[in-house]
Amino acid sequence: MKKLINDPQDFVAEMLKGTALANPGSLRYVPEFNLIMRVDAPREDKVSVIQGSGSGHEPAHVMFVGRGMLDGACPGDVFSAPPVDYVVGTTKMLNSPMGVLYLVNNYTGDGMAFEMAAEIVEAEGIRVATVVIDDDVAVKDSTYTIGRRGVAGNFFVIKAVGAAAELSASLDDLVLLGNRVNSVTRTMGMALTSCTPPAKGSPLFELGQSEMEMGVGIHGEPGRSREPLGSANEIIDALVEAVVADLPYRRGDQVALMINGLGATPVSELYLAYGRAHEQLVARGIDVARSYVGEYCTSLDMAGCSVTLVRLDDGLVDYLAAPADVAVRIF
Amino acid sequence: MKKLINDPQDFVAEMLKGTALANPGSLRYVPEFNLIMRVDAPREDKVSVIQGSGSGHEPAHVMFVGRGMLDGACPGDVFSAPPVDYVVGTTKMLNSPMGVLYLVNNYTGDGMAFEMAAEIVEAEGIRVATVVIDDDVAVKDSTYTIGRRGVAGNFFVIKAVGAAAELSASLDDLVLLGNRVNSVTRTMGMALTSCTPPAKGSPLFELGQSEMEMGVGIHGEPGRSREPLGSANEIIDALVEAVVADLPYRRGDQVALMINGLGATPVSELYLAYGRAHEQLVARGIDVARSYVGEYCTSLDMAGCSVTLVRLDDGLVDYLAAPADVAVRIF
Repeated sequence: MKKLINDPQDFVAEMLKGTALANPGSLRYVPEFNLIMRVDAPREDKVSVIQGSGSGHEPAHVMFVGRGMLDGACPGDVFSAPPVDYVVGTTKMLNSPMGVLYLVNNYTGDGMAFEMAAEIVEAEGIRVATVVIDDDVAVKDSTYTIGRRGVAGNFFVIKAVGAAAELSASLDDLVLLGNRVNSVTRTMGMALTSCTPPAKGSPLFELGQSEMEMGVGIHGEPGRSREPLGSANEIIDALVEAVVADLPYRRGDQVALMINGLGATPVSELYLAYGRAHEQLVARGIDVARSYVGEYCTSLDMAGCSVTLVRLDDGLVDYLAAPADVAVRIF
Repeated sequence: MKKLINDPQDFVAEMLKGTALANPGSLRYVPEFNLIMRVDAPREDKVSVIQGSGSGHEPAHVMFVGRGMLDGACPGDVFSAPPVDYVVGTTKMLNSPMGVLYLVNNYTGDGMAFEMAAEIVEAEGIRVATVVIDDDVAVKDSTYTIGRRGVAGNFFVIKAVGAAAELSASLDDLVLLGNRVNSVTRTMGMALTSCTPPAKGSPLFELGQSEMEMGVGIHGEPGRSREPLGSANEIIDALVEAVVADLPYRRGDQVALMINGLGATPVSELYLAYGRAHEQLVARGIDVARSYVGEYCTSLDMAGCSVTLVRLDDGLVDYLAAPADVAVRIF
């Protein structure tokens, strides 16, 4: 295992500490709950928007905390749901009179943690609501999931809901918006390599030198098929076809296109992949109105990518284009 | 070799095409010169700022083209200087009455290409000037270099000069500013793994499972020492010490701190490294006023990182904080 780490047990805490140190004016780290929160949260004039999920998917979700996106994120350990008491503690710290919104990727562990936390804090009079994200078209059920998995498309739910929350949208309206974005968002990914959790010290699954996993999950869960290694064009064509056919996206639709890197794929390859995906959509008469290329939801040091489409129905573009200020930025 | 590529010969062209397709309103791809340029360049009211260098370091430099940074970048093939005719063609296309500024990383091949191009275009009446960037403290001379190498610190030269150019600074003033930024910028990097150029298909150098290369160059050139694999804290402490001691940076200095990923290191590890570097500087009485964490200048799929410090002398902060709009962004 070759990583920039110290004791694997300290990996998440040290990563969170660094995230806060790099953003002293905007972010605060609360070690007790693995929490990265905005320094100005909670606010009386906005719903607090919270994500949990496991660590190992950075920048999702702790590096999406900030103005116009999340108010807080309280991840569990690597690829583990947050303990219920992290979610309860986070909810209490971020309790706003306008309510608290949980954005939950559809995994059994995450769902349970947030459901139990909701029961506990509601009994104490805190108003919470939940949006479940399940954008992955690869498989119906999976290792850690009943129903579809939540993957890179969660960025768009966070971005839209975060922008609306900044404009003081109500909790009910944010639930409607979050569900609406999720309903027009579809993703499929693929792995060129496995990934190595720090505490395990060895690859999570085996993938031969001439193999790839199409439809892989973001924790290395099996996808649709193990196939011989293909060219970038073959890979992207297959991902685009699977995603387009699912909603389906149709001629005349306006979409956002995201090529998401899974952690170890260079940005040069992601742009190469973007070019092919863009052309494939244009050839279908689909209008690519917004582009997203980079790392949004990763699987530690996995090489590979995912393709996400969002149909830009009425008003969504404004939420996606709204200003935001989070840890992941280059300036 | 497991990469998202098609024919390795098409790697650079396809990556450049994707970069332009993802930024249709702001960037244009000119295949003849491997050129990514602003759609609104050249402008009469600003010096055109150009970078060249090899490919394989993305986002440097093609993804730094845009408002507030570069007007164009014309990379060579992977880890190869651009041919002279690319630089000549680019210079002619971006010729502004205020002049053209070349930002050149200090490598023998890059230097020769830009020097020869300058002679050719000057003979045709185009006014050019050059700033050479050599921020790498690791070694004095190196495989491809007489003098120090130019590495991730070039981001700060581009950012400052780009911001000043946007304010219509003169060519002479931009040269002074670029040299000033370079003179207060120092970097050292390290490799956990080798990297694989697409056309070679195998790792560029060998690095054992329990080894790391301290002071590695961004083309895998040897650094200061091959050492047993260390912890993140040991690695960061050594890099910070080498960088701080070189200028030197002193108690009371205000600095920008960059942790740059070399291509395959997850952003979680970079933030973990950032936290340690930040603490090491604070312990020395050095004030970290700006933070940069992510990929700025990579070596294809190399795992590893570099540490860069910039002393924020009079006015530099304003140039670094000025708005910019380039391909690498998350929104």
